[in-house]
Amino acid sequence: MGNDSIFIKACKRHATERTPIWIMRQAGRYLPQYRAIREKTDFLTLCKTPELASEVTVQPVDIIGVDAAILFSDILVIPDAMGMHLEIVESKGPTFDDPIRDRDDLKRLNTDGVTGRLQYVMDAIKLTKEKLAGRVPLIGFSGAPWTLATYMIEGKGSKNFDTAKRFIYSDPNAAHELLQLLADAVVDYLNAKIRAGCDAVQIFDTWAGILSPHDLEEFSLRYIKYICGRLETNGAPVIVFAKGVNALKRLAEITCDVIGLDWTMDLAAARAEIGERKALQGNLDPCVLFAPKEKIRQETERVLARYGSGCGHIFNLGHGILPNTSVENTQYLVSCVKELSVKYHQ
Amino acid sequence: MGNDSIFIKACKRHATERTPIWIMRQAGRYLPQYRAIREKTDFLTLCKTPELASEVTVQPVDIIGVDAAILFSDILVIPDAMGMHLEIVESKGPTFDDPIRDRDDLKRLNTDGVTGRLQYVMDAIKLTKEKLAGRVPLIGFSGAPWTLATYMIEGKGSKNFDTAKRFIYSDPNAAHELLQLLADAVVDYLNAKIRAGCDAVQIFDTWAGILSPHDLEEFSLRYIKYICGRLETNGAPVIVFAKGVNALKRLAEITCDVIGLDWTMDLAAARAEIGERKALQGNLDPCVLFAPKEKIRQETERVLARYGSGCGHIFNLGHGILPNTSVENTQYLVSCVKELSVKYHQ
Repeated sequence: MGNDSIFIKACKRHATERTPIWIMRQAGRYLPQYRAIREKTDFLTLCKTPELASEVTVQPVDIIGVDAAILFSDILVIPDAMGMHLEIVESKGPTFDDPIRDRDDLKRLNTDGVTGRLQYVMDAIKLTKEKLAGRVPLIGFSGAPWTLATYMIEGKGSKNFDTAKRFIYSDPNAAHELLQLLADAVVDYLNAKIRAGCDAVQIFDTWAGILSPHDLEEFSLRYIKYICGRLETNGAPVIVFAKGVNALKRLAEITCDVIGLDWTMDLAAARAEIGERKALQGNLDPCVLFAPKEKIRQETERVLARYGSGCGHIFNLGHGILPNTSVENTQYLVSCVKELSVKYHQ
Repeated sequence: MGNDSIFIKACKRHATERTPIWIMRQAGRYLPQYRAIREKTDFLTLCKTPELASEVTVQPVDIIGVDAAILFSDILVIPDAMGMHLEIVESKGPTFDDPIRDRDDLKRLNTDGVTGRLQYVMDAIKLTKEKLAGRVPLIGFSGAPWTLATYMIEGKGSKNFDTAKRFIYSDPNAAHELLQLLADAVVDYLNAKIRAGCDAVQIFDTWAGILSPHDLEEFSLRYIKYICGRLETNGAPVIVFAKGVNALKRLAEITCDVIGLDWTMDLAAARAEIGERKALQGNLDPCVLFAPKEKIRQETERVLARYGSGCGHIFNLGHGILPNTSVENTQYLVSCVKELSVKYHQ
């Protein structure tokens, strides 16, 4: 599966007969078939067991009808492979029991052969490609250095990220050392994923939006640019999703194919500003899936209309699908996109 | 105290000798003098006791040296005065035990004479004015209808606000009924505050930033515009702070004097876009106050430089000061603004 799929074509801003759709976190808790597997397996074991990871990766292709699969995993497998002890309790999110708090802590990180310790991911990619059998392309992903660093420093999710910010403000050199070693690990990891069979890759900078414009450039975008400049893509599109970042001109300078946008952004304005250089991915508010079907249809039409006619739009939510979303409404969203988008491609 | 203060002048984009500063949540937990009072009094009793509320309001003027006081209160006193039972436990935020979940629940709200039941606020304003004795002006504030509604519907703080969004998507007419009755209450409340002696008022729409552009217009900005069009200001400047909203052109259409900006916005870009129509307030990242002094000074200079020369800037943080902030660093910030801003006003 590759260049002739509707998803890959849209990433490259080639003409398609309709707008493709996939959904961030489409393999996840809202699916009963996923929950059935999770009843027997904790989250991290699922990530690390290729047979199971590939099974849940394929579920939304079968059940929801999306145009791409995304390998089931977690962004924090990289710090885990560096020797930080990752625990994921779904009700309270990921935790590291011994977070990075100063320059000395960096010495604890085992940065040699990280990708080798993530062989289970590569094995899951190969199994998934077999199960997909060419039906849809497979996306691989990684967290961006800034987002990985926030978890490694905070040790858990945070409301204000004051510990992570205290770190970058108090010892910027140590912060850059951490971000650089993460950036190198991400380059290696994504290149290995592409070699293992991923047809596209997405870089998630979930917490880029908490930085001031100056800090955003220094601690987030600089490293995304570094990574994107070093990917051996072999034609695989690169998607950058820096949530909450409205500095579109800066995002457009990154060597990538697609910019992901959250639901607070206006697709028409974004396309006017950068749409000739990048494809755009997004951006329905995930909460719309809690609305009656009539509203889901109306808001789907609104997103499609805001992007407008022509190629280069990949439909998605503006953030991950929420755990208590109805499967039926999600299926309905996919059918709406498939039906309503045709007129924008004539 | 009024038109000749540096804060009021800056709000009106009149020339001043330096940039004024005040700090959102400047009367609060980071001050030992505030914590001493809170040891004997719960949060809501403090809001409802004019003698104590006026005392903590004046504290940061004496201790930190800010150029304006803001009356100590909470945005949720309005739903409380409508008969919803507000509880504030500082570790978990505000809660309503019986939230609004459908149209019928609106009947429970006692919307007559709301401002009358907030007489304690007006009494606190009068006492505060006596204590300030003309040293600095006094700001009064209100939550915006959308932000008030999110708490009234969710019943507590929320990560994704899916309950509030489900409400507005499922029964938009009921949502508008709720927002309209809140808007009318806010008009009444802010007008009474101005009559009681407030020299300026600020409208906080803390959760405006979670809405898509279309929903932002329909459920948030429409009601802020309604309120601002009906204030009897008697010359008191009106500040609108819609956190996380980057639709500056839409904000600029509101009949108000000052637009507050969070720390993710670029002051130079904002000034270029709307700075001839509005004064701008902000926007240092509150986490910078956890940094070493050298960094605080450098970032203060950066914010001042991004706004640039001339009148119309009120220095503030981009969000409320965090509870574990150092008093010494906060005092240092104020001294930096007073010193470093002079050159931008020559």
